[in-house]
Amino acid sequence: MNRVKCTISYDGTNFQGYQVQPNKRTVQGEIERVLEKMHKGEEVRIHASGRTDALVHAVGQVIHFDTTISMESRNWQKALNAMLPEDISVREVEIVDSTFHSRFSCIGKEYRYRVYIGEVRDPLKRFYTYHYPYSLNLEAIQQACQYLLGTHDFTSFCSAKTEIEDRVRTIEEFQVDQVEDELIFRIKGNGFLYNMVRIIVGTMLDVGAGRFNPEEIPVILGAKDRTRAGKTAPASGLYLWKVYYK
Amino acid sequence: MNRVKCTISYDGTNFQGYQVQPNKRTVQGEIERVLEKMHKGEEVRIHASGRTDALVHAVGQVIHFDTTISMESRNWQKALNAMLPEDISVREVEIVDSTFHSRFSCIGKEYRYRVYIGEVRDPLKRFYTYHYPYSLNLEAIQQACQYLLGTHDFTSFCSAKTEIEDRVRTIEEFQVDQVEDELIFRIKGNGFLYNMVRIIVGTMLDVGAGRFNPEEIPVILGAKDRTRAGKTAPASGLYLWKVYYK
Repeated sequence: MNRVKCTISYDGTNFQGYQVQPNKRTVQGEIERVLEKMHKGEEVRIHASGRTDALVHAVGQVIHFDTTISMESRNWQKALNAMLPEDISVREVEIVDSTFHSRFSCIGKEYRYRVYIGEVRDPLKRFYTYHYPYSLNLEAIQQACQYLLGTHDFTSFCSAKTEIEDRVRTIEEFQVDQVEDELIFRIKGNGFLYNMVRIIVGTMLDVGAGRFNPEEIPVILGAKDRTRAGKTAPASGLYLWKVYYK
Repeated sequence: MNRVKCTISYDGTNFQGYQVQPNKRTVQGEIERVLEKMHKGEEVRIHASGRTDALVHAVGQVIHFDTTISMESRNWQKALNAMLPEDISVREVEIVDSTFHSRFSCIGKEYRYRVYIGEVRDPLKRFYTYHYPYSLNLEAIQQACQYLLGTHDFTSFCSAKTEIEDRVRTIEEFQVDQVEDELIFRIKGNGFLYNMVRIIVGTMLDVGAGRFNPEEIPVILGAKDRTRAGKTAPASGLYLWKVYYK
């Protein structure tokens, strides 16, 4: 068997998320359908670094699969890109050894989140940003970001439905910059809980709007209570940017 | 009667162009439908600076219409944006006097054209750029651009179906820059013939690919023959950027 690692991009707009679900169009479903064709009807299961929700985009999601087909990485890329729909592309292919696992070998991830802050909605950005047309204090947001850096229990910043018990994660980088009429959040960490980036961004926007002071972030972290943090920012602004391996 | 001037943006992806056509979704059709509702079923005809083709985007298209409704520009903008679909937005409204005409008062236009030059197709750019994954000589393109500046007969650079007899136009600015993995063409002139920007861009890409030398541009201009210029670049990369008035 050969193990194939693929770095993929997708436009999340027309997918009901990453993970296969019956009768729904998903990223995993589309890729597995193509692989099944290439393997003459034999099912091939793919594994991702993690799921993404409906409408969430990916610039550098990583998947892997095992195959009996022996082919150079360049040819895998060409074959897959020729057969995949226009809203998924394979940016890179690597033949890896069987110790590599897209999920278990992952040591960190980077997400980005785009907030469009123009006053009037922009049709060209409607699927690719969150439109937030209210005034924001960027300095306060940047100050608040600092409190989330490092190792914390992120119970307050993940979905209340999260079943994982250990909610301690490390955020290694977190910055926000204004680029023209957008705020771009970049967040890198060793792992993220369900909805964690969207809740963090939602809370940062609450800070920017003056609903929280930056100094309240440590208090919210300490409360370990989802209801204390801000709203979950919409999926359309979120990008899985990069997955890190050793 | 009050004359209302609107600067509008639209995502051309889901429109069959600007101009009303029976049973087709068009920008003009959507705006007139909203105005008809606001005027209690009375038809209101809108006038644009010019048409755009199917899939072409607009950042600063200008339209105007006459109305019996008296309302502040700010309220026009709010009302229209509340009723228009997500892929059209009104960026600015101005109450103008009856000598203003979106088409006849126009003294110039600026278009932009985005060419994505990355090797692998990018799902997030598929509706917003032209994907050209071949090697290009940017310097040659920049040199060729210079030959189009100024006043020329653009017969070679407009659709062979063009019925307008006077094909003399002035290009005031024309530049191309690489921004990350895109070439951005910006072209400003006193008027553009049918398909003119797309044929110019297509020809510039032919120069970049070495199919024409920059020095051949004056020869192509002089021939006044559409078959001498390059292919018409696809609609999806084109943006009507700005319309100029006195």
